[in-house]
Amino acid sequence: MQGLGAAGVATGLAACGRSEQGPAGASNRRFNWKLVTTWPPNFPIFHEGVERFSQDVSKMSNGRLRITVFAGGELIPALQSFDAVSQGTVEMGHGAAYYWSGKIPAAQFFTAVPFGLNAQGMNAWLYYGGGRELWQEIYEPFNLMPLPMGNTGVQMGGWFRKKINSIADLKGLKMRIPGLGGKVMAKAGVNPVLLSGGEIYTSLERGNIDATEWVGPYHDLRLGLHRAADYYYYPGWHEPGPTLELLINNSAWQQLPEDLQLIVENAAAASNIWMLSEFEAKNLAALKTLREEHKVQILPFPDDVIQQLRKFTEEALNEQAAKDATFAKVLTAYRAFASGNAEWSALSEAAYAQALR
Amino acid sequence: MQGLGAAGVATGLAACGRSEQGPAGASNRRFNWKLVTTWPPNFPIFHEGVERFSQDVSKMSNGRLRITVFAGGELIPALQSFDAVSQGTVEMGHGAAYYWSGKIPAAQFFTAVPFGLNAQGMNAWLYYGGGRELWQEIYEPFNLMPLPMGNTGVQMGGWFRKKINSIADLKGLKMRIPGLGGKVMAKAGVNPVLLSGGEIYTSLERGNIDATEWVGPYHDLRLGLHRAADYYYYPGWHEPGPTLELLINNSAWQQLPEDLQLIVENAAAASNIWMLSEFEAKNLAALKTLREEHKVQILPFPDDVIQQLRKFTEEALNEQAAKDATFAKVLTAYRAFASGNAEWSALSEAAYAQALR
Repeated sequence: MQGLGAAGVATGLAACGRSEQGPAGASNRRFNWKLVTTWPPNFPIFHEGVERFSQDVSKMSNGRLRITVFAGGELIPALQSFDAVSQGTVEMGHGAAYYWSGKIPAAQFFTAVPFGLNAQGMNAWLYYGGGRELWQEIYEPFNLMPLPMGNTGVQMGGWFRKKINSIADLKGLKMRIPGLGGKVMAKAGVNPVLLSGGEIYTSLERGNIDATEWVGPYHDLRLGLHRAADYYYYPGWHEPGPTLELLINNSAWQQLPEDLQLIVENAAAASNIWMLSEFEAKNLAALKTLREEHKVQILPFPDDVIQQLRKFTEEALNEQAAKDATFAKVLTAYRAFASGNAEWSALSEAAYAQALR
Repeated sequence: MQGLGAAGVATGLAACGRSEQGPAGASNRRFNWKLVTTWPPNFPIFHEGVERFSQDVSKMSNGRLRITVFAGGELIPALQSFDAVSQGTVEMGHGAAYYWSGKIPAAQFFTAVPFGLNAQGMNAWLYYGGGRELWQEIYEPFNLMPLPMGNTGVQMGGWFRKKINSIADLKGLKMRIPGLGGKVMAKAGVNPVLLSGGEIYTSLERGNIDATEWVGPYHDLRLGLHRAADYYYYPGWHEPGPTLELLINNSAWQQLPEDLQLIVENAAAASNIWMLSEFEAKNLAALKTLREEHKVQILPFPDDVIQQLRKFTEEALNEQAAKDATFAKVLTAYRAFASGNAEWSALSEAAYAQALR
């Protein structure tokens, strides 16, 4: 990390002429950065959390690091943010690593893996279990530095227009489900389709798709999905604690003095816990509304379905590992951590959840 | 919040004369604060996390807010830190709110309640469920501002020198267990005793006590408790996700400019998630050691014991509420949130844990 003097993109917002040095050696150099998200404008929690982050960073740094936030599509198309940050068109992005699995199949480990780590497990792995180092290693060739910043918690399994009584009932369904979850569902005979958030409601309501996953009670209620399908399934085995990602252009990062780097790292970690906490609090309130006002039928996936999907998940992971050495390397590390985590959870979180039943 | 100009305790560490204003209006005013913890020197994770926090704050603020950390007893006795911060002898403290339950019975809700919220639930309640506002309200008369900063996750149930097959086996045991957990155990006929960390091993090994709770695999292994008792019980029903507490003298807090306040808030939230993540990662590694190297017998409390202790917990909470209006008020808010949280967890975290069994 470096302190002062790197040349670069700083622009002068300062109104008054001062010495090069601020208090205690702070560089007066100013950074005006752009951050592009993959979220629609004002997308609750996701985009709002990024806005709070940028405001906090600007205030904590007294305007020395200003981050202007653009929603998906405002500056560049949402799913081009990886390239834009990689090339330095913008300095930061916010989204989820599994959006880049076309380029880097192993990226999906840093969001969520079906039947994998929940939010608490992801944070333990990323911050203290070697996960973050692996993540940095696979992004380094793209001149990118990732940080965890936000987590949705366990999502819901999705909305279905018919009841799912066994694995056979999945066969032939058209379901909006992206990523590895879609690959796993395909093994059960589902036809996974990709639709953006804006297309889901109408497609489901018209019967163009038979099922969809989205996020959780709070976001699903806002989208009105309870008016388009009768059955709401849990748990979200396919996304048990998706980590959201702050992408930073590595050359830009190296130009930040240490104080600004620490401000970004602390603010990203704070956003990580604040966003998860907001999801949890808003989901539990929205669940009450769905249940009490809208009388939604909320059902667990049958055990047989869960066990089959779990088997298909292992197959899908092994298939990808056979094709991609980096994927195989991260899979090995991930499985080792997840297995220790499951042993510990069996005495702690899982045992405690059991005691509360 | 205020920006500039408040009179106070700032002392001049600055080596070079500069204007009153730093970059972008940052006050050049310097704050040299003291923070006293309730932890032994170098106590892993607990004390270390506070050291990291203070170093980060100092660097993020370019030395404008320097926090010197003292372990319990180094400056003042550990359990006098509440008074010391309240009176302004020092500006900050770190510990756990339930240490102050002698003064404020309701304080224990902001650490942990037997059969109450786990770490994720505590954070949702504190940050987005009204918990933090209640906490601030009950500390305000003491001129204190609390922030959540750290969480141990679900603890272990404790070490026992004999097997616990039924609730009757608890009767007459001398157990080191503080707080509400001790009150609940007393209802089962346990004689709860208070011992500091340094006294536990010898007391247990000599049979002066029959059982003890401490923290979790990582800290328990370091204390060598597996050499003093044969049976290690789970889960830690009495401390399912204790929140650690940053105490701030409110008058001192009001003197910080907004940028330094935000630096403290973000750093405390970052420490909150980092400390929990470190506990999880180190506990799962220590669990392997206890199991594989030391062949410790790890057992679940029998269902009957759990159900009885749960009933005793409700009795103990209701008894305290009958004696203390503030306790009753916080209990009502806590129960409302915890009940919604349990409904949501039954579809998310708890259901997912079940799917992984």
